Amino acid sequence: MPCKTNSELETFLKKAKHYTKMGKVADYIPALSKANRDDLSIAIYFPDGKYVSAGNVKEKITLQSISKVLTLALALIQRGEELVFSKVGYEPTGDPFNSIVKLEMSKPSKPLNPMINAGALAVTHMIKGNSVEERFTSILSFIQLLTGNKEIHYSKEVAQSEFETSHLNRSLCYFMKQHGIIDENVEELLDLYTKQCAIEVDCLDLARIGIVFALGGIDPVTKKRIMPAHVARLCKTFMVTCGMYNASGEFAVRVGIPAKSGVSGGILGAVPNRFGIGISGPALDDKGNSVAGVKLLEMLAEKYSLSMF
Amino acid sequence: MPCKTNSELETFLKKAKHYTKMGKVADYIPALSKANRDDLSIAIYFPDGKYVSAGNVKEKITLQSISKVLTLALALIQRGEELVFSKVGYEPTGDPFNSIVKLEMSKPSKPLNPMINAGALAVTHMIKGNSVEERFTSILSFIQLLTGNKEIHYSKEVAQSEFETSHLNRSLCYFMKQHGIIDENVEELLDLYTKQCAIEVDCLDLARIGIVFALGGIDPVTKKRIMPAHVARLCKTFMVTCGMYNASGEFAVRVGIPAKSGVSGGILGAVPNRFGIGISGPALDDKGNSVAGVKLLEMLAEKYSLSMF
Amino acid sequence: MPCKTNSELETFLKKAKHYTKMGKVADYIPALSKANRDDLSIAIYFPDGKYVSAGNVKEKITLQSISKVLTLALALIQRGEELVFSKVGYEPTGDPFNSIVKLEMSKPSKPLNPMINAGALAVTHMIKGNSVEERFTSILSFIQLLTGNKEIHYSKEVAQSEFETSHLNRSLCYFMKQHGIIDENVEELLDLYTKQCAIEVDCLDLARIGIVFALGGIDPVTKKRIMPAHVARLCKTFMVTCGMYNASGEFAVRVGIPAKSGVSGGILGAVPNRFGIGISGPALDDKGNSVAGVKLLEMLAEKYSLSMF
Amino acid sequence: MPCKTNSELETFLKKAKHYTKMGKVADYIPALSKANRDDLSIAIYFPDGKYVSAGNVKEKITLQSISKVLTLALALIQRGEELVFSKVGYEPTGDPFNSIVKLEMSKPSKPLNPMINAGALAVTHMIKGNSVEERFTSILSFIQLLTGNKEIHYSKEVAQSEFETSHLNRSLCYFMKQHGIIDENVEELLDLYTKQCAIEVDCLDLARIGIVFALGGIDPVTKKRIMPAHVARLCKTFMVTCGMYNASGEFAVRVGIPAKSGVSGGILGAVPNRFGIGISGPALDDKGNSVAGVKLLEMLAEKYSLSMF
Repeated sequence: MPCKTNSELETFLKKAKHYTKMGKVADYIPALSKANRDDLSIAIYFPDGKYVSAGNVKEKITLQSISKVLTLALALIQRGEELVFSKVGYEPTGDPFNSIVKLEMSKPSKPLNPMINAGALAVTHMIKGNSVEERFTSILSFIQLLTGNKEIHYSKEVAQSEFETSHLNRSLCYFMKQHGIIDENVEELLDLYTKQCAIEVDCLDLARIGIVFALGGIDPVTKKRIMPAHVARLCKTFMVTCGMYNASGEFAVRVGIPAKSGVSGGILGAVPNRFGIGISGPALDDKGNSVAGVKLLEMLAEKYSLSMF
Repeated sequence: MPCKTNSELETFLKKAKHYTKMGKVADYIPALSKANRDDLSIAIYFPDGKYVSAGNVKEKITLQSISKVLTLALALIQRGEELVFSKVGYEPTGDPFNSIVKLEMSKPSKPLNPMINAGALAVTHMIKGNSVEERFTSILSFIQLLTGNKEIHYSKEVAQSEFETSHLNRSLCYFMKQHGIIDENVEELLDLYTKQCAIEVDCLDLARIGIVFALGGIDPVTKKRIMPAHVARLCKTFMVTCGMYNASGEFAVRVGIPAKSGVSGGILGAVPNRFGIGISGPALDDKGNSVAGVKLLEMLAEKYSLSMF
Repeated sequence: MPCKTNSELETFLKKAKHYTKMGKVADYIPALSKANRDDLSIAIYFPDGKYVSAGNVKEKITLQSISKVLTLALALIQRGEELVFSKVGYEPTGDPFNSIVKLEMSKPSKPLNPMINAGALAVTHMIKGNSVEERFTSILSFIQLLTGNKEIHYSKEVAQSEFETSHLNRSLCYFMKQHGIIDENVEELLDLYTKQCAIEVDCLDLARIGIVFALGGIDPVTKKRIMPAHVARLCKTFMVTCGMYNASGEFAVRVGIPAKSGVSGGILGAVPNRFGIGISGPALDDKGNSVAGVKLLEMLAEKYSLSMF
Repeated sequence: MPCKTNSELETFLKKAKHYTKMGKVADYIPALSKANRDDLSIAIYFPDGKYVSAGNVKEKITLQSISKVLTLALALIQRGEELVFSKVGYEPTGDPFNSIVKLEMSKPSKPLNPMINAGALAVTHMIKGNSVEERFTSILSFIQLLTGNKEIHYSKEVAQSEFETSHLNRSLCYFMKQHGIIDENVEELLDLYTKQCAIEVDCLDLARIGIVFALGGIDPVTKKRIMPAHVARLCKTFMVTCGMYNASGEFAVRVGIPAKSGVSGGILGAVPNRFGIGISGPALDDKGNSVAGVKLLEMLAEKYSLSMF
């Protein structure tokens, strides 16, 4: 088992940290651009509920696209696989995560997978509840359960800022509304979606979520089942085929573990049966993944033979 | 000069009317689907202010896409060519009129021309006024001026129905808002746009507008200039290159006159210096043009050598 | 009637010549890159068989894409409209002239129009003859007839150079062969096509071709009919809707005459019933049109009200 | 360990066989259309060199797209990862396997991955040798080595038939030649490629190849290393992300093992460290995968928990 001590992990972190200089902090909303480019922290959770970490693990980031895989799990629990995949596909795509082209060119106009924006919006649309508030509580509670952390909340500033500027997501939503993929009020859906993206976690929280997926849905501390095994498996599959934006294929080759990244610089990793990994490193590469985070995972993957393949 | 008598025109109309059976009335909103598939009427205006007509010329239809060329004229008058074409291009496209693909794939994300929905929305966005009401009044007054008909108004039922269902146009608007092509409230723009599309005219009104374009902006009755010659010319150019949806090229070959059609079955035609033509015939072909209207124009074009080419 | 004297035309030429500095000579094959960026010459033919000219009118250029409209005329004469348009469409496209995307995305996989490469290849495919030599003789003779110039031939160097490098055209051909648009040997078709593109003319030849189209198919000197009126009309229509690459729409607005350009810097213009225009100016703008040639046409259009619209 | 006896496997086969009725044999070349729709056979190889099988295991099929992953392994051995991935990408795509659209729309014009036709052609282009014959011998020897079967050869009839009809592949090749991805004679490359696709194997051969990948490159019988571990891993990664055409994502969810299919109805599967699977079942679903083969794998995956996720 790798990295049983913090100091071992810190050695890796130190090496990887040089790469932050090659990245850029997301700046499409002011709240994200305030992040420190040089930050980098990592935590690894083990099946026995223990963990190691390195860097400033208390540094919070928003989930952003990492939330896509969590609401997918929740939607699968609430609605079942058949309904969910009547509205979103299973297939990876070579198009950008926020592309609308395939929605127009595919018949039916169904988002190709739940990891692109259109697909994630269709998934969030399926979260149960009588109001945005109720549905958001449902998502937040699920994430508190996954992390074992009742303190988790969302950043109003980030949510508000994204809500005001996400016209591309509005465009995707109305396109899907036209084609019957979603049928709710678009502003409400975006309110819910931007709140979900603005949920704040640290790398320890991410690592804890990772170990739950790694263990097929079991909480490492309470040993209770949080989600059915097939839901955890399904989520890990999407993390491999399309979890790292348009670098998913290369990441699968170089690292080979289920992972999901977000533009805040977070990465959620799950090594089946072995460990959960959480990384926070806001400097992004040109595909939108944490540049130092990916490097760190490459080093760990090589050292500890993490690849599933 | 062709068709100096109604009876001559009626002979053509009778022949063309058989083609209505091959078309289908637009049914994407209930209000449009109520139209009578077998209706067909035509009017031709001459430079001296006289006209001939055939069919039930009092049958009203909504402008729909025909409004695109009229608001283009108004925007050019109000804002000038430079500003207008900073937000919309000059080029025809082989994509459908409501396509969003090119907006994503072109850099900058500017609609290719003012005759596709994205371009028309960008044009309507530029109409001056402090409120939707004021801007709509500006459009409506312009059309009353063009037709010399103060009775012209819009169908609240059609406008409302389109407003509620035009999610594809919302999608286009938000895409353009993301890319800075438009910067107003989308619901307000759609309110204005759907009202403009719902303005009701008959074939005589359309023919009268046609003769104004044909005369380079001069009213045939009052002999007053309604728009600058270069604006009239510019509009006629777009009518030729992209006025008849994705059949514009074939229409240019077969008929060869500036024309603009709408899904209500209307066609506005302008034969430079010779006459204005208005047609109402709700049965559409698979490209969205009045099937009998196009046939009628083909017959007239052959008989009276209408083609500009 | 404009420019009855060479000196009047020379004044325009002198002004337009400054714009050559803003352009770039095509360099995708060495033979084309040898052209002199600063060259500019123009000739205008009148219906009575007289002409004026300015610049070095003996400067030869290869037809390149200008040949597309000439083989279209020949194919229409040889095969008739129905057959020709079973293999190529009528519609303008916003895609680049050498794009393959629409061939894959449209059903059936028919080139959108005869002015893009795919369409022009499909048209040349239809030229009759038992061998490449025989078919090329047929094309060359037709162009000698149009220009009244028996001296016209093709540049072996340019043809050979293009034949060796036009892999994109091979790609288009095989795509069309797969879909049944063409069924001949691709290397033979490309041999024929590159020869046709390499036919050498000067601006006087182009102007003479222009007046034939302008007169609906009649030779201005012999007064004999070279092509049926409907063929001339059809060609002029395509020149307006898609003759100037992806600047056809803007050219229609600014100049408003049927015209076809080539990457050698040639422009063939036809003002219906009035005159034929030939321009040679190798410096190209970013759309592939002669930058000074377009400017020259804009000046003439404004001065002499050339626009058809 | 599953299926230690043939009879156990036969029970599964019997169930899966009903699904052949729902599929269609590939018919784009006559040689393939002769296959028997109702055929279905499977073999499973174990790390100890033993195997079980069911159905008519002697039934031969051609490799078709299965060859893509084998030449990828060979090219990686011969040329190294850096060179190979300078000419082909790592990323899955939502486009069809034979699509050319992304080649035009991506910059640089590099095929997205080695499992689509364009990418596979670029990979075969890199196979070393002084002639098609020498390069084909290199591929064939590698497959004989992988299968431990010196009798393996190719079907001249299938190769010839595909060579004559694969104009779409020619189109892809010339497009890539234009953009510098390949620089050899296209007919030679296609000769080599169609021969490689026409190599004949049975399900036992496929299972034996599968176990080599499953064991990270080690032959189960001789215990010798056939390819470096990182090459085997890389191939398995592509099999997961894009091995099953445009159903790769769904297959990853439902079965969850590295697999590559071909239009002949073959499937090559590799369950890391556990076993190799070979299936032959010519009836295809609408994505191009063996319909009964996929069902069989779903059953086995559920029964024996094959999923890696």
